Amino acid sequence: DESTQNVVLINTFTVPARKLDEAIAMWDAAREFLHTQPGYISTKLHQSLSGDAQYQLINVAQWETPEAYQAATALMRETANLPRIEGVVPGPALYNVIRD
Amino acid sequence: DESTQNVVLINTFTVPARKLDEAIAMWDAAREFLHTQPGYISTKLHQSLSGDAQYQLINVAQWETPEAYQAATALMRETANLPRIEGVVPGPALYNVIRD
Repeated sequence: DESTQNVVLINTFTVPARKLDEAIAMWDAAREFLHTQPGYISTKLHQSLSGDAQYQLINVAQWETPEAYQAATALMRETANLPRIEGVVPGPALYNVIRD
Repeated sequence: DESTQNVVLINTFTVPARKLDEAIAMWDAAREFLHTQPGYISTKLHQSLSGDAQYQLINVAQWETPEAYQAATALMRETANLPRIEGVVPGPALYNVIRD
């Protein structure tokens, strides 16, 4: 049933072409922090095949609960002070799988 | 190496709240067609936990090659004549996994 189901974090990143490497390096740094946090399960970072896709990077990650994800990202913002990259706009939201 | 790697179709759907059930039913019909096509591997349809997320539905599907995906969707458009649903805007793009 839904209560025991993991949640899926899907984060669509708008990334200017010249900032792609920087954005991936920032994502790596964030993952280094997040994967140590309680409730983290797994993640996959996707890069668009075409340069003109709306989202050059999309992260799809599994978390045990919404609370675990929110606590981990709040802690990251407070402590890991990852740099903002000009023009890189994340768009995170939590999902349940309803068909597979 | 990348050449043998499957491609990932990520399709972000803008869906007006009142059209959600219709959009899911249309997605089911499309999947009925697509999963019979060569190169189809698997799919997961995600529904947002919150009603005000930009994308209420996001599909993440595995295909063997970009060509297989493009051929299957072209054939679907020609033959399955799935109805357009007012206000439902798909946003498909193909990706490779670069981190997991």
